[in-house]
Amino acid sequence: MSFQVTEKVTEFCQKHTLLDQRDKIVVGVSGGPDSLCLLHHLVRFRSDLGLDLTIAHLNHQLRGSDAQADEAFVRDVASRWQVPIRVEAHDVAALAAKRKQSLEEAARQIRYAFLWRTASAVGARKIAVGHNADDQVETILMHFLRGTGLAGLRGMLPLTDIAGLRLHPDDIDHSVSPAPKLVRPLLDISRAEIEAYCQTNDLAPRQDYSNQDVTIFRNRLRHELIPLLETYNPNIRQVLRRTANVVAADYSILQADLEQAWRRVTKAESPEKIEFDLAGWLALPLALKRSTLRRAVQTLRRSLRDISFEHVEQAIMIIEKGQTGAQATLPQGLMLTADYHRLMIASENSVLVPGQLDGPYLARGQIISLNLPGVKAIPQTNWRLKSQLISPDSLPRQQLEQVGRWEAYLDAEIVGKKVVLRTRQPGDRFHPLGLEGHSQKINEFMINEKIPVGLRDHIPLLVGDNRILWVCGYRPDERARVRSTTNHVLHLTFEAQ
Amino acid sequence: MSFQVTEKVTEFCQKHTLLDQRDKIVVGVSGGPDSLCLLHHLVRFRSDLGLDLTIAHLNHQLRGSDAQADEAFVRDVASRWQVPIRVEAHDVAALAAKRKQSLEEAARQIRYAFLWRTASAVGARKIAVGHNADDQVETILMHFLRGTGLAGLRGMLPLTDIAGLRLHPDDIDHSVSPAPKLVRPLLDISRAEIEAYCQTNDLAPRQDYSNQDVTIFRNRLRHELIPLLETYNPNIRQVLRRTANVVAADYSILQADLEQAWRRVTKAESPEKIEFDLAGWLALPLALKRSTLRRAVQTLRRSLRDISFEHVEQAIMIIEKGQTGAQATLPQGLMLTADYHRLMIASENSVLVPGQLDGPYLARGQIISLNLPGVKAIPQTNWRLKSQLISPDSLPRQQLEQVGRWEAYLDAEIVGKKVVLRTRQPGDRFHPLGLEGHSQKINEFMINEKIPVGLRDHIPLLVGDNRILWVCGYRPDERARVRSTTNHVLHLTFEAQ
Repeated sequence: MSFQVTEKVTEFCQKHTLLDQRDKIVVGVSGGPDSLCLLHHLVRFRSDLGLDLTIAHLNHQLRGSDAQADEAFVRDVASRWQVPIRVEAHDVAALAAKRKQSLEEAARQIRYAFLWRTASAVGARKIAVGHNADDQVETILMHFLRGTGLAGLRGMLPLTDIAGLRLHPDDIDHSVSPAPKLVRPLLDISRAEIEAYCQTNDLAPRQDYSNQDVTIFRNRLRHELIPLLETYNPNIRQVLRRTANVVAADYSILQADLEQAWRRVTKAESPEKIEFDLAGWLALPLALKRSTLRRAVQTLRRSLRDISFEHVEQAIMIIEKGQTGAQATLPQGLMLTADYHRLMIASENSVLVPGQLDGPYLARGQIISLNLPGVKAIPQTNWRLKSQLISPDSLPRQQLEQVGRWEAYLDAEIVGKKVVLRTRQPGDRFHPLGLEGHSQKINEFMINEKIPVGLRDHIPLLVGDNRILWVCGYRPDERARVRSTTNHVLHLTFEAQ
Repeated sequence: MSFQVTEKVTEFCQKHTLLDQRDKIVVGVSGGPDSLCLLHHLVRFRSDLGLDLTIAHLNHQLRGSDAQADEAFVRDVASRWQVPIRVEAHDVAALAAKRKQSLEEAARQIRYAFLWRTASAVGARKIAVGHNADDQVETILMHFLRGTGLAGLRGMLPLTDIAGLRLHPDDIDHSVSPAPKLVRPLLDISRAEIEAYCQTNDLAPRQDYSNQDVTIFRNRLRHELIPLLETYNPNIRQVLRRTANVVAADYSILQADLEQAWRRVTKAESPEKIEFDLAGWLALPLALKRSTLRRAVQTLRRSLRDISFEHVEQAIMIIEKGQTGAQATLPQGLMLTADYHRLMIASENSVLVPGQLDGPYLARGQIISLNLPGVKAIPQTNWRLKSQLISPDSLPRQQLEQVGRWEAYLDAEIVGKKVVLRTRQPGDRFHPLGLEGHSQKINEFMINEKIPVGLRDHIPLLVGDNRILWVCGYRPDERARVRSTTNHVLHLTFEAQ
């Protein structure tokens, strides 16, 4: 068995090119069977491959004297096998409480951050950890039950970038680059094989810490669910690892597709905002709409949390159905806003100033006097307002119904001569056309119309004689509408140049 | 509940564009709750949408009088709701026995084939079936446990091509085209909702046939596994359907990638053989290597069976490591053969004639006389054999070890003057270099060398004085090798032009 394990690990390392000649490797060693077997294997090939090994041992301070005994054991192994060792102690329980995380999640983050720091300190480009084939099966199942999509169904990867793990930003020194690679040489070796290996080689490992503090959830998987699944398919462990293998390869193609789509549709990218070309984005297949949105959120918020499926679906639906100004909430305080040509993902707090959205939007508090009829440019935009007088007779009935968004026909006499465009002010009310003459607060109207918060202070209002006559882009006032008694019709049109 | 179901089905149909105005639809109706609910919904919208419905009922002849009662019930519904009906009776049990299939699989194939025939008969472009959300969850889980990869994790699709289902070729009239679409309007409705719908609408469905004959496997899923999974994640049903939804979109991108890769690497395609450009294929990412091979097998063998993961992995490994003539077994009597420029997938029985493989291969039984030294073209190939005499002194030792595949250094005096190239003959033997002077049958040697069966009659043998001196491309004869006593060295090289 021992020989077989050595063979299998060597083959696995070759297949996935986990080890190179003269690699400098930090090995995470808890003292349990997995990490001890891993260390033993690497030490065995140390001189052949010219490996430069360093042990990293984390004292979790979770079980008092046991943690001390684990540390002493690993220090003893390090000295007997002549491998340099780095040890850190962290109060994982305290940190978990402080960060409101599960013990398992806090331990995971601290462990990887420690390994990363150690690799940086000793100049290692690789970190080896002892995850085995049974860990892999449990991980795949957990992700399946949680519904993580393909990324999760890949399980753990034999070779991955530690920067890809979601770690707590406080724990990481991002100034150190490049990030080391994480390798998992035992990912094809079962727990039973590892235990046999330890026995054959007289390794006498400690009880694995990670077998004790794992959540009830993982323990139930191991002792209840997987044995039941084996009654459905005796090869379930192999099947799940094979699925992970297949999915990992499929996923990497999807990532390449995402990369390509991202480059094609992204018009601007900054730490605060990402802009897609709206038409290009709308033409993407559903899976790439999903993944570009996810990536945008991940880029703007280096987040620990997953983005929920519902958030993404909801956002896609709104944008697909929406018109200019359509806006959807994304997680973590991000908003998705569509205008004519662009789809923007930015903080919901970021103020939308004229020029950011394509429309005749005003700066907050801006007032523009108009001479009617005539043409007036809207400052800081490429829009202008054209107004002309026409006779009611030259106005076919249907034209009133097919009026464009940025267009209105009003009774010229009611509008009057002293007219301004301005943004909303406290207490503003008007009589929305179609509301049977009732008046409504502008704020209420804007909420009903689902006008994005950030846009509300920028919508131009046509105001004559202190009366709001047109919430431009949305609704004329009932009082200013063209009637059978109208003598002169004022035709207003915002035009982009 | 009833109203909600109607709303949800309508919305689902719109989202996936399952129904169009004036659709002609065959509805599979067993008489159970699902199909009765489906039929009721469609009848309700029949006049609004101008639908033209036909019921298809299959009498499985499985439970004697019950099957008759089911048929009578469905005929009665058809008459009351004024929907034309077509009924067929098939002895499913007998057919399952004959085809050595499970009852469930045989019933599935007969049912879909019957629906297809019915659609063809009445000129319907759509077939509607009553699969519900719980069926979907069970299907996804079954596929997960079996390890079907992404195609299976998609579960059942709301809208799919019936030609994509794996049906028994005997059951299908392929002359009818185009194949109708299969739609599943109830795929988002739970079993409980359907039962409530039936109750509210006084439908009094029959016990669903499909609930009785389902395998023990599916029943265990329903009553044992899913309830257990719900203790891990109470939303497991929703999670799995969401996973299917995500995977379906991802899968369609992968299919587009496959399509593109297929067009790029496929050099020739016939019902007997598919040829890929070897370099192009080797440059594909792993997932596309897998999917191009799968597609090749599916194209050549319109098969009911899945291609095993191991088959595909094994084949990829052999070709990636292999040299010209590398050959891997694929399922269903197919072989994968690589030559210098091509990768061929064809029946293992198909004879490889010169010109099909790129190498100096002879036609079976061909004999070519050589004048040594000199140059001789190999007919029907673009290869020629060049031979020249050199002095042993001008032969550095290492050159003998780094000799190319189509190159040999032999003792000119032992080779002699009367030399031919020919293919193997019964009883042929030689003394393979390195076998300590022992002689071996050519056939045995070829088997040991894993030379593909189809190639063995085409390998050129260099024969002088009735002795085989070189199995070209593989091994010189021990007796003809260059020794310290050699006076003249014959340097033979096959060259492609």
